[in-house]
Amino acid sequence: MTACDETHDPRRRSWVATANRDGADFPIQNLPFGVFSPAGRAPRFGIAIGDSILDVGAAHAAGLLIGAAAEGAEAAQGGALNALFALPASVRTELRRQVVALLDAAAPPRPELLHDGAACRLHLPTEVRNYTDFFAGIHHARAAGALLAPDNPLPSNYKWVPIAYHGRASSVRASGSEVRRPQGQRAPRSGGDGRPGFGPSQLLDLELEMGFYIGPGNDLGDPIPVAEAGERIVGFCLLNDWSARDIQRWEMVPLGPFLSKSFSTTVSPWVVTSDALRPFRVPAMVRPEGDPAPLDHLLDGADQEAGGLDVELTVWLSTARMRAEGQGPTVIITSNAQYLYWTPAQMVAHHSSGGCNLLPGDLLGTGTISGPTRAQLSSLLELTMGGREPVTLPNGEQRGFLADGDEVTFTARCRRDGFVPIGFGACTGTIVP
Amino acid sequence: MTACDETHDPRRRSWVATANRDGADFPIQNLPFGVFSPAGRAPRFGIAIGDSILDVGAAHAAGLLIGAAAEGAEAAQGGALNALFALPASVRTELRRQVVALLDAAAPPRPELLHDGAACRLHLPTEVRNYTDFFAGIHHARAAGALLAPDNPLPSNYKWVPIAYHGRASSVRASGSEVRRPQGQRAPRSGGDGRPGFGPSQLLDLELEMGFYIGPGNDLGDPIPVAEAGERIVGFCLLNDWSARDIQRWEMVPLGPFLSKSFSTTVSPWVVTSDALRPFRVPAMVRPEGDPAPLDHLLDGADQEAGGLDVELTVWLSTARMRAEGQGPTVIITSNAQYLYWTPAQMVAHHSSGGCNLLPGDLLGTGTISGPTRAQLSSLLELTMGGREPVTLPNGEQRGFLADGDEVTFTARCRRDGFVPIGFGACTGTIVP
Repeated sequence: MTACDETHDPRRRSWVATANRDGADFPIQNLPFGVFSPAGRAPRFGIAIGDSILDVGAAHAAGLLIGAAAEGAEAAQGGALNALFALPASVRTELRRQVVALLDAAAPPRPELLHDGAACRLHLPTEVRNYTDFFAGIHHARAAGALLAPDNPLPSNYKWVPIAYHGRASSVRASGSEVRRPQGQRAPRSGGDGRPGFGPSQLLDLELEMGFYIGPGNDLGDPIPVAEAGERIVGFCLLNDWSARDIQRWEMVPLGPFLSKSFSTTVSPWVVTSDALRPFRVPAMVRPEGDPAPLDHLLDGADQEAGGLDVELTVWLSTARMRAEGQGPTVIITSNAQYLYWTPAQMVAHHSSGGCNLLPGDLLGTGTISGPTRAQLSSLLELTMGGREPVTLPNGEQRGFLADGDEVTFTARCRRDGFVPIGFGACTGTIVP
Repeated sequence: MTACDETHDPRRRSWVATANRDGADFPIQNLPFGVFSPAGRAPRFGIAIGDSILDVGAAHAAGLLIGAAAEGAEAAQGGALNALFALPASVRTELRRQVVALLDAAAPPRPELLHDGAACRLHLPTEVRNYTDFFAGIHHARAAGALLAPDNPLPSNYKWVPIAYHGRASSVRASGSEVRRPQGQRAPRSGGDGRPGFGPSQLLDLELEMGFYIGPGNDLGDPIPVAEAGERIVGFCLLNDWSARDIQRWEMVPLGPFLSKSFSTTVSPWVVTSDALRPFRVPAMVRPEGDPAPLDHLLDGADQEAGGLDVELTVWLSTARMRAEGQGPTVIITSNAQYLYWTPAQMVAHHSSGGCNLLPGDLLGTGTISGPTRAQLSSLLELTMGGREPVTLPNGEQRGFLADGDEVTFTARCRRDGFVPIGFGACTGTIVP
């Protein structure tokens, strides 16, 4: 899974100058897949390079892609990549390989194939037919569990079952969309008239997650073995599982979260491919002494060795007042995907283990990726102890939960000695009343 | 909502003779919508009449539909009715009205527009983009709650919140599909080694529900008021929410049912329209003395008066041995949709109340519709007290839960003095190993 090849060569540069800058999210070693619209034109398949977007269809029309790469480009016509994702992983690998060659500094520059990323609109990469959200961040499970259910901080099944629930597919949105504060029911006030309240959520929260997209799926009744599950994952994004804690607390027993999370889910629009992430794979989380080994159907040697992800995650907050006063966003949380108790492959294997069919383009979320330290608690619920210990921002503002006008941005970065760092782009949403 | 018109006239007969038989599910007063394939041909829009199916596209091609009805037929081209459902309710009402006239005994017979239903394959009526399952059967909530969580048979939010969870859309199948017994984890045996088991579910169950399809949806952030929610429902079907109780018990805390229900959901393929059901609407369940009134956003006078449904529901079981011995299926459960604590309109209003967007063709399930008596307990979990009191079948076989080879069929019927009874067709699934 982690075998690196010439596409990861750190010496490689692109004729797209912005791709070669220190700190670029999208150097030639990355090349994430997405769907974009140039101003006033129809959505199409793009690959990000520096500050630009390569129009893959235009490259194909110019005769620059051959064989499997041409097949991939053809499958990606229209405004969603589901049909491309349905093809074998080798097609996408070859497509990325040919695009590396096309954008290499040694190749003839073809600026006519590029669009200025800042002038384009970015869309969801797939038509998300199914969205599932896991609960694989054990530090989150423990910290949030203690607040929502003090008697039972870590569910007894946690170390055996990659716990998940079906999320709402229709309300997944690409970065940059506004997030309207939801209305909903909250528990009756103690000492009140016993009636639940109804109104705008007062405890609106973010959850820092990664998302990943399914490639070739499986037929109903035909589980994906864990050893094959990794290669079914096309790539990764950042995901904000916006959560209304007051609504959640009241509604979630016994069938789980519903309206508290279905008003909006935001993803970063670029799919950072499993191929681009090869240098940044790490062993699965080492289970603490005393924790059980996963059951056989979730256990694969190669996955244990390199199924984890070393992705540095950062949460930025910008309030309306900060923007009015000309201040930039401030970091409120940092974490790392290494804190996931279950690997993405284990999540895919579990999801399909009972026969449930995964479709190409389906979106899976990891669950909130909190780390062991206070600054790594990856939702405000945890970070502020349920709002009791608000965060103080540089301008003196305080936040227990999110206020109208707050803009939340996730960014991420992979670094490893001997490789060019890559990023994910931004996952941004702004709270509106 | 309940205003009947000439399409409900009990004197009306059709030139399709099987539609006029006593006990027909699909008399001319019904005319449910669906998608069918004649042998070896592509899926298309059909309306059931007696034992036949009207090819609506062929009727339109023959110039027999005009105005809104023609518009509806055009939207329904292809193998799914989502685009038809996206149109205003008046389009479907007019389409049904013109098809009544076309099939009326006084009209010239056009047998060339019909297909023999028994020779056709029936499909899901829509591409189900989102599937949500409610928990609106209060007798079920109490009976199942007592078995799964004895301390808390009825959750404290039950009488305020139309509880629901997101179901798995990809595994919804039309009647007649095989249901493969899922594998999964179950809780560690008491006195065992503390490890959960993994293998085929030993407690496979049915759940008797109704399903309904969304017509014109709502934009993200734009709730559907309860007074408008009823008209967003295109029509109803029967739904079997197959459930693996051993998997469910182990996985469902804290985020709800996941793999225990996502291996298969079966629906009857015909959408019995809200128009056809007008004569059979009844008041919402009368809440027992002491129960609170619904909150304002779930309360509408017209919905309270006629938002309920009087649908008699029957569960039939046929075992492999019964079929081998030439015995027909036996009734094991009967119930009625009147036992729902929340109306379908309240479910739609709740679902969208936080801003979640419903899409045309989305499927909502009511939850298991148990009644107050033992014979009305609408899952084996409840009926057999968790398997402890198995049901004895006429041939002496016993069932605590479902065995391989068991064929489960739901049927339903609406009756009211002065109206022709209508049915729903069958919702059937057979358990395979």
